[in-house]
Amino acid sequence: MTMDKQMHQRAIDWLNQAADLLRATLDSPLQVKQKQNAHDLVTEMDCRIEDYLIQQIRHYYPNHQILSEEGQGDVFLNTEGYLWIIDPIDGTLNYVKEKNHFAILLGIYYNGNPIAGYIVDVMNEQLYYGIVGDGVYLNHQPLLPIQIASLETSLIHGNVHLFIHNRYQAREILNHSLGMRHYGAAGLDMISVIRGEAALYLSPRLQPWDFAAGLAIFTAMNYKMTTPTGQPLDLLKQQAVLACHPAVHSQVLDIIQSTDSEANYNDN
Amino acid sequence: MTMDKQMHQRAIDWLNQAADLLRATLDSPLQVKQKQNAHDLVTEMDCRIEDYLIQQIRHYYPNHQILSEEGQGDVFLNTEGYLWIIDPIDGTLNYVKEKNHFAILLGIYYNGNPIAGYIVDVMNEQLYYGIVGDGVYLNHQPLLPIQIASLETSLIHGNVHLFIHNRYQAREILNHSLGMRHYGAAGLDMISVIRGEAALYLSPRLQPWDFAAGLAIFTAMNYKMTTPTGQPLDLLKQQAVLACHPAVHSQVLDIIQSTDSEANYNDN
Repeated sequence: MTMDKQMHQRAIDWLNQAADLLRATLDSPLQVKQKQNAHDLVTEMDCRIEDYLIQQIRHYYPNHQILSEEGQGDVFLNTEGYLWIIDPIDGTLNYVKEKNHFAILLGIYYNGNPIAGYIVDVMNEQLYYGIVGDGVYLNHQPLLPIQIASLETSLIHGNVHLFIHNRYQAREILNHSLGMRHYGAAGLDMISVIRGEAALYLSPRLQPWDFAAGLAIFTAMNYKMTTPTGQPLDLLKQQAVLACHPAVHSQVLDIIQSTDSEANYNDN
Repeated sequence: MTMDKQMHQRAIDWLNQAADLLRATLDSPLQVKQKQNAHDLVTEMDCRIEDYLIQQIRHYYPNHQILSEEGQGDVFLNTEGYLWIIDPIDGTLNYVKEKNHFAILLGIYYNGNPIAGYIVDVMNEQLYYGIVGDGVYLNHQPLLPIQIASLETSLIHGNVHLFIHNRYQAREILNHSLGMRHYGAAGLDMISVIRGEAALYLSPRLQPWDFAAGLAIFTAMNYKMTTPTGQPLDLLKQQAVLACHPAVHSQVLDIIQSTDSEANYNDN
């Protein structure tokens, strides 16, 4: 199944509308609620963007399934047919605290296979998308990534707790690299790999809406996004994710699997 | 001593010229040399920008002293009179590897006191400056920082190795905060504090050219930039730096000084 041009154009129009709304309301007072803890926030804008996107999809594609972060999508059963996976605001903590460095994420899948992925870096007004079988674009121009030659000559991205607790041999990966950067929004940390600014992004725990857009773009680029043990990602569950340039993927898997303890490479 | 308007205008003109040159040559092949190690790079563009800025300063202000990263400034003796402190490319590793997230830094001091500081976020085309006794500006508009209420409701910035080795009780500071971000260029990590996106930036080792621009801007804002034990910074030496919103400075000093071991709060 390849991406339908009209569906692509609609997706872009909706994402642009949503990004405009987020920028226009940026200085308005915001209702912020905690979900699981103080780091896990939801605002009325997450819900409003989600609601807008879901209404559009339901209007034009009533038979498609929708999986979305704030729960207004389908109570999800399977990956058959078309599936839209949405994160209305990726990096809600950055959105609330920085008013910067957040994204809108959309992945479109058919029978469990990615066909298109979209990441809007809202404050930089940059739209990245990848169409499987076609290529990857930044603001509608073909994206030419910086070359990645090896882990030793590259930067890496990940959350600081990975390195403090040395999960997935993160310190060993770091020691092989030139250094660590972290933006705190999965979509934006993945963009660093997509642009070739970094060789990899490692996360101990991503939800489907955190990685679905990136996985589709990575697939369009023949880049690697797997679990830290190299297994395919499951679209229906939370899991650890290694998003990686192909030049370093097997080396990083080897480092992760060189650990002495099972606990360190448990994907869940 | 307050900042001279003509000197301010010249500084801005030179920095804009330098930023234009960096953007225009971004895709040219680059000669990269290692300094102390693979993380410490210099390119011909560091030297070219430094040379350009120093030539301008020497032409208009032949009696002023200049301290600059790549060594074309004065063999520096004291802080008497005017002192220009330059980092031609802050975040050279990002410049080389990301072609993104680097800055030009300039601090102007008189008898050791900051009078003006400039940070150019080159790829975002954002010029931040602070004039002591006047205020802080982004692209010539007064900057209105996001409010910081407490460490517990804020993000923090620092290098991952601080947290791995728990230097300056970095993990304890992190545990009090909402999370860590890191861009890998001192000037850009300081901008996060200047904008109110983060409450603090902590570094175990900055050179005068890494912190002089930020220190002047912080001074103009009545923000705090000290050693991690709260001492004033020495303009002539490498040292550990705590760049901090005033609402959290004393709390962070208390956390750092609560350590059991002297080694953890040695500033050098």
